[in-house]
Amino acid sequence: MTEAPRERIEARSGGSPATDTTIWIGPGLLQEAGERLSSPSGRFVVVSAIPAQPAAEVVRRALGDRIFCEVLIDDREAGKNLQAVLGIADRALAAGLRRDDAVVAVGGGVVCDVAGFAAAILLRGVRWNAVPTTTGAMADAAIGGKTGVDHPAGKNLLGAFHPPCVVLIDPRAATSLSDRDFRAGLVEAFKAAWIADGELARRAERALSRILARDEESLLDLLGGAVRVKVSIVSSDPRESGERRLLNFGHTLGHALEAAGGYRDLRHGEAVAWGIAAALELSVRRCGLVPEAADSIRGVLARLGPFPPPCRDPRTLAGFLERDKKATARGIAAVLLESIGRARIEEAVPAEEWLAAAAIMSLT
Amino acid sequence: MTEAPRERIEARSGGSPATDTTIWIGPGLLQEAGERLSSPSGRFVVVSAIPAQPAAEVVRRALGDRIFCEVLIDDREAGKNLQAVLGIADRALAAGLRRDDAVVAVGGGVVCDVAGFAAAILLRGVRWNAVPTTTGAMADAAIGGKTGVDHPAGKNLLGAFHPPCVVLIDPRAATSLSDRDFRAGLVEAFKAAWIADGELARRAERALSRILARDEESLLDLLGGAVRVKVSIVSSDPRESGERRLLNFGHTLGHALEAAGGYRDLRHGEAVAWGIAAALELSVRRCGLVPEAADSIRGVLARLGPFPPPCRDPRTLAGFLERDKKATARGIAAVLLESIGRARIEEAVPAEEWLAAAAIMSLT
Repeated sequence: MTEAPRERIEARSGGSPATDTTIWIGPGLLQEAGERLSSPSGRFVVVSAIPAQPAAEVVRRALGDRIFCEVLIDDREAGKNLQAVLGIADRALAAGLRRDDAVVAVGGGVVCDVAGFAAAILLRGVRWNAVPTTTGAMADAAIGGKTGVDHPAGKNLLGAFHPPCVVLIDPRAATSLSDRDFRAGLVEAFKAAWIADGELARRAERALSRILARDEESLLDLLGGAVRVKVSIVSSDPRESGERRLLNFGHTLGHALEAAGGYRDLRHGEAVAWGIAAALELSVRRCGLVPEAADSIRGVLARLGPFPPPCRDPRTLAGFLERDKKATARGIAAVLLESIGRARIEEAVPAEEWLAAAAIMSLT
Repeated sequence: MTEAPRERIEARSGGSPATDTTIWIGPGLLQEAGERLSSPSGRFVVVSAIPAQPAAEVVRRALGDRIFCEVLIDDREAGKNLQAVLGIADRALAAGLRRDDAVVAVGGGVVCDVAGFAAAILLRGVRWNAVPTTTGAMADAAIGGKTGVDHPAGKNLLGAFHPPCVVLIDPRAATSLSDRDFRAGLVEAFKAAWIADGELARRAERALSRILARDEESLLDLLGGAVRVKVSIVSSDPRESGERRLLNFGHTLGHALEAAGGYRDLRHGEAVAWGIAAALELSVRRCGLVPEAADSIRGVLARLGPFPPPCRDPRTLAGFLERDKKATARGIAAVLLESIGRARIEEAVPAEEWLAAAAIMSLT
């Protein structure tokens, strides 16, 4: 048996070493969960969801009797609430969780966000490991330390910055993913390339057919590149006071579109794709993005889709835009592109401009 | 009008400047809340409890229309739960809370713990200010960044390290405190002196009659000294991996006694007093604390009391001891005294030794 390639990326949070993250990327890593996942006591609480069971089963075999508690949660956006966090807390505390134990999240973005948040507040913070099983969680959700849940007033309104100590990115964990989820998650990976790595964007665009066919090497190149972009940005700004906001490219309107669809009509990545389409309109107008570059991004999004049509009603969207967490007294910040691989923040784009862009945005 | 003395203490958390705390100590500071409390946007959510209304009223007048949301919470231990945090979140989000707004907690330890935890998880963390209105909160709860709530499985099992940006310690805020609460809270202040400042302990013991008569100058000397001890220890170990555990002097058994009394029979400070009495037994046996020093501490506790008798039943206490958050795979850590002003950690004291000490501990 030849050894599969493993890439190791270290993410520093700027805080104590306890908040640094080691990210492993490579095919077959799931099997090595026993050696790679970290717990000071050696004991683990495993949190997973139904669709992630093939990967969870591999992790279970790898960790064996070091697992002292297992919790299954609902991985739909509707289940991403404080009640789910409390459910994990109840089970872990009843099983005798101690400060030196660790949580392992096996699943997509919702599982990572909820289990990571539970780890953040249990005993004022225990360690956690992320084993993402969706392309979106591999490229984005599991990296960077943002954890949290939704509140009736909006998405991700309760949470904490609490980076995992280890992230295992094994593309084979996404094998059982539906084509729709697989493609929607890749929007986040391309997003990272578009804001900060033009060369990766060009390479992944050329490899897009192979990526969509789930060719391991091409997929790893894109995911690894996206992770490196995110790590580099997050390390320079862990608490999102400046540069980190660039990662919200496509998310300001995207979150509003997702909410307007009741978190049912659009996957997160699909909503972000539409949000990017709107941001492209503003980028051409405000930041001198050349129309050819905007077309090339739209072309990639079209090949990742087709995505369901979003809500374009200004009144509905306006209500959700106002609740944006990144709205301050100064207005809603916008992440726009100057060119492929180069983004910048416009501090206060009026809601009207967003709504006008939403009315005309297209992915063809 | 002559200017009242104001002491300013800066507490560094070792994290980003956003987690540093400015502590103001002095009589009449409540009136200056408008200039002292901090909010990046200038806007405040005020969280208080019924018994703290005299102080909250002064803060209200000082902040005026900069308060955009007010929440009243139950300040009894029974109300210190995730539901209370969610109640604050619901109200603050409905009122349009933004990332650059800040929370102000006006009340005792429960109000500070709950409101601080709400601030920790709202929008993944907004700033907060503490205006403690009890001697216990002034000496201990408002300082150091520990926030959190209870869980049916035990006390403070859910929470976060999230230091307030400003703490206003005005002894006049405690004017309306009952004698029992006033005295129980002073146990935490003396605790700080006993573990780390022998000179303060001797001075406060000599001034005890004046302190109990609520003489402002003597009280400020003790509270200021306790705050300096806590700030110094916390700054060197914000996440409680080492030295900070010294602050748990009296708390290991204290928490078990409090739980055994259903959080009704004993005030927190009273339970800590009994916990200290037990720790004194172990300190004489294990750390060479001279019996005269133990007697002198017991004498101070007796004058702060008399305190209601605690549960001494080994079976009841054993169950609560096992749930101690500071219990690791290695056993239950104990904070013991070598001399007045000098404490150390014994890493793994068997539960049986604690229970034996609980059986014989006395405050006379």
